Amino acid sequence: MANFHPPLKAVAFDAYGTLFDVYSVGATADRFFPGRGETLAQLWRDKQIEYTRLRTLCDKYVSFWQVTEDALTFACLRLNLTVTPPQRAELLDQYRRLKAYDENSGALKRLNAMGLPLAILSNGDPEMLADAVSAAGLGSHFDHLLSVDSVQRFKTAPEAYQLGPDALGFRPEEILFASSNGWDIAGATWFGYTTFWVNRTAQPMEQLGVRAHAEGRSLDDLVKFVAQRV
Amino acid sequence: MANFHPPLKAVAFDAYGTLFDVYSVGATADRFFPGRGETLAQLWRDKQIEYTRLRTLCDKYVSFWQVTEDALTFACLRLNLTVTPPQRAELLDQYRRLKAYDENSGALKRLNAMGLPLAILSNGDPEMLADAVSAAGLGSHFDHLLSVDSVQRFKTAPEAYQLGPDALGFRPEEILFASSNGWDIAGATWFGYTTFWVNRTAQPMEQLGVRAHAEGRSLDDLVKFVAQRV
Repeated sequence: MANFHPPLKAVAFDAYGTLFDVYSVGATADRFFPGRGETLAQLWRDKQIEYTRLRTLCDKYVSFWQVTEDALTFACLRLNLTVTPPQRAELLDQYRRLKAYDENSGALKRLNAMGLPLAILSNGDPEMLADAVSAAGLGSHFDHLLSVDSVQRFKTAPEAYQLGPDALGFRPEEILFASSNGWDIAGATWFGYTTFWVNRTAQPMEQLGVRAHAEGRSLDDLVKFVAQRV
Repeated sequence: MANFHPPLKAVAFDAYGTLFDVYSVGATADRFFPGRGETLAQLWRDKQIEYTRLRTLCDKYVSFWQVTEDALTFACLRLNLTVTPPQRAELLDQYRRLKAYDENSGALKRLNAMGLPLAILSNGDPEMLADAVSAAGLGSHFDHLLSVDSVQRFKTAPEAYQLGPDALGFRPEEILFASSNGWDIAGATWFGYTTFWVNRTAQPMEQLGVRAHAEGRSLDDLVKFVAQRV
């Protein structure tokens, strides 16, 4: 990294895993399949991400909602779990009202007070994002909800990351891109963003020859970093 | 699928998982880390595939050997396993001489007897492929060892699959593409190949809105299918 750091002019957040806890669906899954909820939630999430990549590589986009449905179908087949239609509806519905992390609201408020425009840049389709933000009561903090649906390519495709500079009107390095997903950090750093890895569960860094510009455990750590760089 | 099937004029095989048993490294890993070898081998493989996709999406190609090294590094960090340099060298070396599946040799011989050109179309780099084929004694069966290294994009990118028609001189639908990996079958079917899923472990189909033209449990089943279609 060069010694000169441009001042940060905006922050763009990943949604799932970063602002919203995607593993909170595990609790619901565990009610239906005692002792196996965590495994189902993990495989569902892994497949969801895998399908976004396969579809983008082959230019076969469908909405993130469709991908989420397909991934649940596969995960249940793979684990030999028979899910009834009402159970399936309840599991999917969780994805529209995921639990937000506790520190979000306070941290976003402090970023707002610094006068920085805030965006969400997510694989989720517009309806999913609007529902999740609204259910978590976070809507007032964000200036932009950016969905890859408008370019029909999922992260980590450059066309997806380009949505941030286009909407915010700043160069990528002037925008702090924040994600809890190591692969998302790799993609965003390659793209040119200044990046902050919200490494909530102390994961090792992905071995892709690229690293986040900064790292912390929560959005509170991110706020401290931003305060030194505006 | 339409009722008219063009006669098959060649067969292209995926290598890792299809001809060569990638989980055979688990045995070596288990010697080093008793009880955890299977987990290490699985995570290593998952990360290896994940890194091929992330790098292709972002146009950050490095060789499959490099990806294999990086994936091993991550898997050991993630599982908190300290691997000594000699252990690491032995694990990596396994990848150059993977166990071939038992039925390979006989099945390939029967396909040769039908007069069909045979190819390997793999993410592996040319040296890895040459070593693996030679170690398994399968070299004489193949007319082409096609590595995505020549296009610097891993499967499931269309540029990777295009290597088959280019080398074999047939249209994709005249070539039977065989893989044990469901995601590879999805990519190859989208591309236009006639596809045969060597579903060795009775996995459910990936939920990507596309299916193999035929399915079996081993290369012996593939030979039976080909015999009806030449």
